[in-house]
Amino acid sequence: MRITQLGEDRLIRRWTRALRNDRSVLRGVGDDCAVLSGAKGVPLLFASDMLVEGVHFRASADPAAVGWKALAVNVSDIAAMGGLPRYAVVSLGFPPSARVARTDGLYRGLKRCADRFGVNLVGGDTGRASCWVIGVAILGEVEPRRLVCRTGARPGDWLLVTGRLGGAVESGRHLTFTPRLREARVIGARIRPRAMMDLSDGLWTDLPRLCRASGVGAVVETGRIPRQAGCSLRQAVAEGEDFELLMAIPPEQAKPLLRWAAWHLRCGLTTIGRIVRGRLIRYVDAAGKELRFKEGFKHF
Amino acid sequence: MRITQLGEDRLIRRWTRALRNDRSVLRGVGDDCAVLSGAKGVPLLFASDMLVEGVHFRASADPAAVGWKALAVNVSDIAAMGGLPRYAVVSLGFPPSARVARTDGLYRGLKRCADRFGVNLVGGDTGRASCWVIGVAILGEVEPRRLVCRTGARPGDWLLVTGRLGGAVESGRHLTFTPRLREARVIGARIRPRAMMDLSDGLWTDLPRLCRASGVGAVVETGRIPRQAGCSLRQAVAEGEDFELLMAIPPEQAKPLLRWAAWHLRCGLTTIGRIVRGRLIRYVDAAGKELRFKEGFKHF
Repeated sequence: MRITQLGEDRLIRRWTRALRNDRSVLRGVGDDCAVLSGAKGVPLLFASDMLVEGVHFRASADPAAVGWKALAVNVSDIAAMGGLPRYAVVSLGFPPSARVARTDGLYRGLKRCADRFGVNLVGGDTGRASCWVIGVAILGEVEPRRLVCRTGARPGDWLLVTGRLGGAVESGRHLTFTPRLREARVIGARIRPRAMMDLSDGLWTDLPRLCRASGVGAVVETGRIPRQAGCSLRQAVAEGEDFELLMAIPPEQAKPLLRWAAWHLRCGLTTIGRIVRGRLIRYVDAAGKELRFKEGFKHF
Repeated sequence: MRITQLGEDRLIRRWTRALRNDRSVLRGVGDDCAVLSGAKGVPLLFASDMLVEGVHFRASADPAAVGWKALAVNVSDIAAMGGLPRYAVVSLGFPPSARVARTDGLYRGLKRCADRFGVNLVGGDTGRASCWVIGVAILGEVEPRRLVCRTGARPGDWLLVTGRLGGAVESGRHLTFTPRLREARVIGARIRPRAMMDLSDGLWTDLPRLCRASGVGAVVETGRIPRQAGCSLRQAVAEGEDFELLMAIPPEQAKPLLRWAAWHLRCGLTTIGRIVRGRLIRYVDAAGKELRFKEGFKHF
């Protein structure tokens, strides 16, 4: 059997079902970050994400933008748990023919992102590879009362997203996006979302992950989905690489938050649907008609 | 300029010289692990190492052995600082044509290594790549009095290595080796080496790193270097992938340690030379004649 026949989520479940972790692992595989019981009651967040040339960026891409993205996708994972990024290590692979100037550019992008979000670049390794590979692992901290996992969504919660969705790859925004760290922190200072994740693979692929983790279903009103200019509904739902935040928030907290966000959250905050009982995820238009999409981003 | 013209160490210095880390980073780039001031006074060790098909293993290699190696090289980094590995995240890249059975094998090897050395596998990511890529990042802990960096070697210290060197790639040992975690811990319970590192790129490449970090030189007596059966001196010195420990220890501590090790350290512990003033690293034979070798393992 080829891995394409299983897909990412089933592969990961297959590999990780027999893992034996000790009690210091508050949350292991299955969220944006692992949660480890740090000392002083401050949980540690631990995650990694790897970019590969030809898959996550083109060979012709600006290396500084690639470096930025390599760290930014990891910062986004920390933001999605309500935490603050602190340290990162970087594993770099290049073909021997790589130009020093391009590798300098990559590191410049990494540093710019690190400085912007308060990340200490503390180590890693480098070596030969047949194409460019940039693996980043990130370590963050989160106050226990601010920690948000994918597991807490309850029927009746509203579904909210930051920013606008769609066209991230075509526009090049997937290389230059701003992870929603500030937004997650200022929202987390006002309320505690019941569940949160970042939209890396698109709503069509990611919402089922949040719902499965919480044991709930959802109804999305397609007319409400905030789209990037010129993007079709399909693009907004299925393309991925937006790195916006998806949150489940009880209505009594969502309402004042939306009023506040209208004035104070520049990227915007939009209600796109609600959490329901069951396991079904339905996309309905304004007339209540159910819509289906082609598949979202597939890693394999 | 191509990266091959600079080499790994100069590339890393070039990229990392302008890094600005905060005071919680006790030691950043330049050692086997970064050292971060954890809470409760227990420093955290943070490192990453990536394996790439065709560079660190052949496409035909047993995937379980590749999985073992991917984690073991990281455990070795933690051992080299005197610490205990605790958590790891894994970034996997496969071609879409990869067989599920081979990816299962890889994960089986990762788990076997994790169980053996008490590592919690807590997350990571997976995606498409043109060849197999396995990136592991590891988080460990170390008691402050047990922390050993590369920086502490002083003139007069003896240079010791565990085990035997050479032929690791040819014999396949580079895929199945046992990281010297137990050895580092039992030695650390008796004495505190002044400096320590693991030999991943071979003595010829790695000893200069330890000496540069400590601001010292060294004299190695080639006749004393413990070699694997059938290996030439050049193989033992320059091939790399041995993952044995190299330590600098004051003679008054090294002598009783060697007597103890003769009975209790199955892998063996051997004095191969001594730390001297200056910056020169000399390899001399029993007659005092200086030897030169071809270059050690080069990442580019």
